[in-house]
Amino acid sequence: MKKILILGAGLSTGNLIEYLLNNAEEHDWQITVGDISEEVARAKVNGHPRGAARVFDINDDMESWRTIADHDVVISMLPAKMHHLVADKCLDLRKPMLTASYATEEIKALEEKAKKANIPIMMELGLDPGIDHMSAMNLINRIKEEGNQLTSFYSFTGGLVAPEYDNNPWNYKFTWNPRNVVMAGNGVSTFINNGKYKYIPYHRLFDRTLKRKILQLGDFEIYANRDSLKYREIYDLQNIPSMYRGTIRRPGFSKAWNVFVRLGCTEDGYTIEDSENMTYREYINAFLKYEPNVPVEIKLQEYCRNAENPVVFEKLKWLGIFDNRKVGLKNATPAQILQKLLEEKWKMDPEDKDMIVMQHEFKYNNGTEEKMIVSAMAVEGKDQKETAMSITVGLPLAIATKLLLTGKIKNTGIVLPIYKDIYEPILAELETFGISFEEKEYMLG
Amino acid sequence: MKKILILGAGLSTGNLIEYLLNNAEEHDWQITVGDISEEVARAKVNGHPRGAARVFDINDDMESWRTIADHDVVISMLPAKMHHLVADKCLDLRKPMLTASYATEEIKALEEKAKKANIPIMMELGLDPGIDHMSAMNLINRIKEEGNQLTSFYSFTGGLVAPEYDNNPWNYKFTWNPRNVVMAGNGVSTFINNGKYKYIPYHRLFDRTLKRKILQLGDFEIYANRDSLKYREIYDLQNIPSMYRGTIRRPGFSKAWNVFVRLGCTEDGYTIEDSENMTYREYINAFLKYEPNVPVEIKLQEYCRNAENPVVFEKLKWLGIFDNRKVGLKNATPAQILQKLLEEKWKMDPEDKDMIVMQHEFKYNNGTEEKMIVSAMAVEGKDQKETAMSITVGLPLAIATKLLLTGKIKNTGIVLPIYKDIYEPILAELETFGISFEEKEYMLG
Repeated sequence: MKKILILGAGLSTGNLIEYLLNNAEEHDWQITVGDISEEVARAKVNGHPRGAARVFDINDDMESWRTIADHDVVISMLPAKMHHLVADKCLDLRKPMLTASYATEEIKALEEKAKKANIPIMMELGLDPGIDHMSAMNLINRIKEEGNQLTSFYSFTGGLVAPEYDNNPWNYKFTWNPRNVVMAGNGVSTFINNGKYKYIPYHRLFDRTLKRKILQLGDFEIYANRDSLKYREIYDLQNIPSMYRGTIRRPGFSKAWNVFVRLGCTEDGYTIEDSENMTYREYINAFLKYEPNVPVEIKLQEYCRNAENPVVFEKLKWLGIFDNRKVGLKNATPAQILQKLLEEKWKMDPEDKDMIVMQHEFKYNNGTEEKMIVSAMAVEGKDQKETAMSITVGLPLAIATKLLLTGKIKNTGIVLPIYKDIYEPILAELETFGISFEEKEYMLG
Repeated sequence: MKKILILGAGLSTGNLIEYLLNNAEEHDWQITVGDISEEVARAKVNGHPRGAARVFDINDDMESWRTIADHDVVISMLPAKMHHLVADKCLDLRKPMLTASYATEEIKALEEKAKKANIPIMMELGLDPGIDHMSAMNLINRIKEEGNQLTSFYSFTGGLVAPEYDNNPWNYKFTWNPRNVVMAGNGVSTFINNGKYKYIPYHRLFDRTLKRKILQLGDFEIYANRDSLKYREIYDLQNIPSMYRGTIRRPGFSKAWNVFVRLGCTEDGYTIEDSENMTYREYINAFLKYEPNVPVEIKLQEYCRNAENPVVFEKLKWLGIFDNRKVGLKNATPAQILQKLLEEKWKMDPEDKDMIVMQHEFKYNNGTEEKMIVSAMAVEGKDQKETAMSITVGLPLAIATKLLLTGKIKNTGIVLPIYKDIYEPILAELETFGISFEEKEYMLG
């Protein structure tokens, strides 16, 4: 019998836990779900005979040691900044660990320790990062193996509301961590285009979108992700002339969002004076000039040209940014105030479903011809629990855990799913859950 | 006999050291100038019988202890981040310390220790911070003592090239730390206008200038300094409805500078790939879209509307940003590359003189009338050694040292020059050096 420990029973753990419980009998697994709240853990286990729920607190050193020691593998669904604490303990106890989060510098620092312990710390096994790596490497290796030269790789992912529930002027709702959405792109975004490095400062990022039609889902727009360059090394594409990664939104989102960026509403480094007692109208006015005889609406349109556009202005107005309604947040940063408003307006209704969209675009030549492959995927959530996000984050992680426990993964150290023996079986099994890529090939020029 | 220790013999220490040496005989002072380079210290002492030069390294613990212990007062002209190390040693040895730098959080943390030691750590005794505080407090206290209610305080300072040497299209040369100029305003700028808090994000700062005529020196423009609000407490103006501090430039500077801010050229948080081998033209192109058939000049004008203006475009072109000349800086941030170019172009010629301009604007009412006082000062440098910056930073610091050594300063703890017994004698003596404010009173409305 193998014992699996899942740490954290929050959002996006539903499909992960369900998969492992469903496969527990066949593989003789025992599954423990640990969470700060035993109740939350218990709800996820839902009385399954192969499951158990318990309190787990990574800050309780002795108890976390004992718990990890009692299991064969650990899946950390804790907040990302806690993973390295878990990983460190796992390595001391020679237990493999898996997560859906980025291999941060703190995690990478454990590489040597993991190698010495002969143990894998498997990172980036979710959607993005995760399925993006697996599906990209699958195509990259195929294109290379066929003797082609890759010249360009663009890759986009987005978490959106599914089309039939898409009923607000932003064509967007929060299907994932709202804070990450408000802070998205903060910093510089870097990519390379035909050998030319390109740098977009944050305040211009939402000006510079790409447009795409994806599958049969209609029109989308894409803004650049922060660092596209580092993926050249991960994907073994060091000399590729063009490389770009981006985030998918519906058309018009970025032009309106840019008004907030330009105003300074997404800044998070200082707090607004007396934010608790101000109204949203006063909040917006705090970024505009002092002209007491000009309405806030007009000042905003004069200050940010985008807001002159009626389509943009309607989006802003719909959010209630001109309302004399109190913010009611103490010592809040501009970003925190904006987030509070958006959480009300961009909330998923109980019957709403989310949607994940991903598209890879490869250009390559075979010596005589320039070709292009477009590979796209879309997944819709089933309900508020089995969201597309929970499915696409949880399933690859669960399948990787199965591969590990059945001896299919030999790697040690900090491991990303960029190796054929990892991504091939995961992608194959994901297809059985309807998570598959539609691929089209074009001749260029 | 009293022994004065001056730490650091770099830029802007000339007038400080000269004043103290000139007054040494009368007050029976012995002056030691300590610097990492004994040669630099020796050049400043210039063989004066009351002066001595020596090597001083704050990182050499034992030796700095011994040196400080052997003196009665310490003036730190070291880089600002080192002041707290000096102050800490001074307090252990119960020696007063003076600097022209900001009372940082690290310095403020020494308040209790300084109070207990019954010793003053005198900060912000230069120009800005320094003369700005003294001249402001002088007027604030006078206006209050006359029974008036202050309603508004705007204050501006600028270091510029003197008018007759002002011969480039930017009407600007580096008369002070170039890095501080390139990074100026990075972060949010905050002020209050008629009771309304206002926040300007960095990328909009140079859009929102004020215009002023100052003295007989013609037209200027002003952009907001980072945090104007904290001065309400320093100046005991907690409830003042309007408070704004700004930096003075010649008209047109900000509109052109804003092109660099909008491009991302002033960012300092990442390095540009292969910066060493790129040209300035490629550097600018790295912030613009990939459109190989459109010249960089046109792309820039399309991307930043300001650059369409021929007056702005001439400024940019004059800097050589479109030249195919190599940057030659390894692993450089955008800001470092821009700084390197500007250091060549905005360099003071050997015969050039600098100029300091400062203006305070107070509004107040006496119960029946609204009035305004405008108080302005300008100082021109004498030559490249006796710059306006060196004069206005060094003299108040030197005079404060004299006051301290002659028993005129009773304050202990972290002390700013906001007390009458400090600023009155300093301002009076500065007038004998030609540093004086011209004051005008107006009736408003």
